[in-house]
Amino acid sequence: MVAVGSKCRTCRGSAIIDLPRHNANFCAEHFMELCRRQVVKAIDHFKMLTRDDRILVAVSGGKDSLAVWDLLLDLGYRADGLYVGLGIGEYSETSAVYARAFAEQRDLHLIEVKLRDDYGYDIPTAARATRRVPCSACGMSKRHIFDKAALDGGYTVLVTGHNLDDEAAVLFGNTLRWDVEYLARQLPVLEARAGFPRKVKPLVRLTERETAAWCIVRGIDYLVDECPMALGNKHLAYKSALNAIEETSPGSKAGFYFNFIDNMAPLLAGRALADGLELGACSNCGAPTTGNVCAFCHLAETASAHAPVPVELVMKKGRGKR
Amino acid sequence: MVAVGSKCRTCRGSAIIDLPRHNANFCAEHFMELCRRQVVKAIDHFKMLTRDDRILVAVSGGKDSLAVWDLLLDLGYRADGLYVGLGIGEYSETSAVYARAFAEQRDLHLIEVKLRDDYGYDIPTAARATRRVPCSACGMSKRHIFDKAALDGGYTVLVTGHNLDDEAAVLFGNTLRWDVEYLARQLPVLEARAGFPRKVKPLVRLTERETAAWCIVRGIDYLVDECPMALGNKHLAYKSALNAIEETSPGSKAGFYFNFIDNMAPLLAGRALADGLELGACSNCGAPTTGNVCAFCHLAETASAHAPVPVELVMKKGRGKR
Repeated sequence: MVAVGSKCRTCRGSAIIDLPRHNANFCAEHFMELCRRQVVKAIDHFKMLTRDDRILVAVSGGKDSLAVWDLLLDLGYRADGLYVGLGIGEYSETSAVYARAFAEQRDLHLIEVKLRDDYGYDIPTAARATRRVPCSACGMSKRHIFDKAALDGGYTVLVTGHNLDDEAAVLFGNTLRWDVEYLARQLPVLEARAGFPRKVKPLVRLTERETAAWCIVRGIDYLVDECPMALGNKHLAYKSALNAIEETSPGSKAGFYFNFIDNMAPLLAGRALADGLELGACSNCGAPTTGNVCAFCHLAETASAHAPVPVELVMKKGRGKR
Repeated sequence: MVAVGSKCRTCRGSAIIDLPRHNANFCAEHFMELCRRQVVKAIDHFKMLTRDDRILVAVSGGKDSLAVWDLLLDLGYRADGLYVGLGIGEYSETSAVYARAFAEQRDLHLIEVKLRDDYGYDIPTAARATRRVPCSACGMSKRHIFDKAALDGGYTVLVTGHNLDDEAAVLFGNTLRWDVEYLARQLPVLEARAGFPRKVKPLVRLTERETAAWCIVRGIDYLVDECPMALGNKHLAYKSALNAIEETSPGSKAGFYFNFIDNMAPLLAGRALADGLELGACSNCGAPTTGNVCAFCHLAETASAHAPVPVELVMKKGRGKR
């Protein structure tokens, strides 16, 4: 991770990580200090959280969600966790082990929702039943369950572990299509609206390499594997294109994301798709929807009526199509 | 370029090129037809040219500028050429040979301007004297000379050979920085303003692979080499990042550029840097400028006072810095 003999910028001690974007190397202690400072800066600058907030962290068992939960606790916030069992074979089973272990070791409250037990389907089956790409069915399911759990539990804010690489890649995808309605809502804070909790992303100033290093330095065990259903998706292609640029021009990725927030987002205010929509309540679950039944209930109905599909089958199909 | 046995989409004859973006293969004849159609579509859609225009084509001796000159003549337009000798060693000498040969073979009028003879400097010397990257000094010099030649010659429009890859890469660079003032002027047509001719880019619907194929099919000899001073610049890094995306999702590059034009450019209208500026006349050459002396005259003064620097020297320096 760092050249032998490199010194920490802060204390001149032995460095454990080089951060070309900051043009510096850091020892473990001062790397952690940098991470905390970046998270505090994001929280303060975007007015993400107050000490009075009741915080729910969406936890997957991966590095980002465990790092954000850990960082918030470390910074003195109180926060519960929410784990959604997506039923993606062994991947989901292992991810649950990591999420539970983190919570148990620290005596934290972890809410668990299991798609198969609570809604009668899982992501591989939903992908097959709806003939949508798995990431689409998965995103919709998680969003609905996050919203519902936050509102049902009386939480004032939902935290997700999206890091700078995630946000820059999503921004890149929306920019490649110049999808103005999506670009307009690409912000590190989404305010609460009727039926939706407030949502914030405290890790937007940290890269995924940095959140992984945070976990390693802090001794947090996390699921290293990417979701097997996401392999080869466009999001990963966008990340790798941005990484190629970042390598020749360190800081480009952060510039891309933060200059968007500073220069462009203000010009797009009010243009998000949701801004102009009149929302009613889903006749089935009460969630906000433009129709009679919300998209999640529609998905759950279709998917739960389908015979369970093992993840391997859907992956093979996906790969064949590419 | 195309799998053996591939058939032309139009005539089922033997194909010479595959175009994944159009999901089709073409024979030489119908490939040319496609190129003409794309250029006509760009000219019509963006109202670039009329038959009454007096057209000046900026010609470098490379594939794009010779292709656009050839295509315009092929489509029945009359157009003169303008070649600027940049003094980039053998590269410039060879490029001049190709530009002159094209014009002579077709009995066309080619205006020649030579930086060293007419302004007392060349690009390598300008880069060294101003300590700017060569592409910056080169771009500024060409823009000034293009503008002046078009206005002095009474031309109503200046044509450049920018292709889809060029435009998408410049757009990508400006987007990475979210440089709103530059994004706002990234259009295939720039209208005339006091001191500036109208400028149009008829090749925006063709990729560089397609303009190269046009030249090959038409028997046009062109300088294949990239400019030696541009090697390793960011523009080429942006092209390669977009090419990586294009490979997994054919059509992304065209979508990126044309969705920008359709969805975003209207939101940025009036935000270009030049839109708000009061321009006076350069006390030396009369060109529009915000100051007393225009940036070109300033560059020419500095560079012409400097002892000539051979291109190899500047290139070595550039490479060492990277």
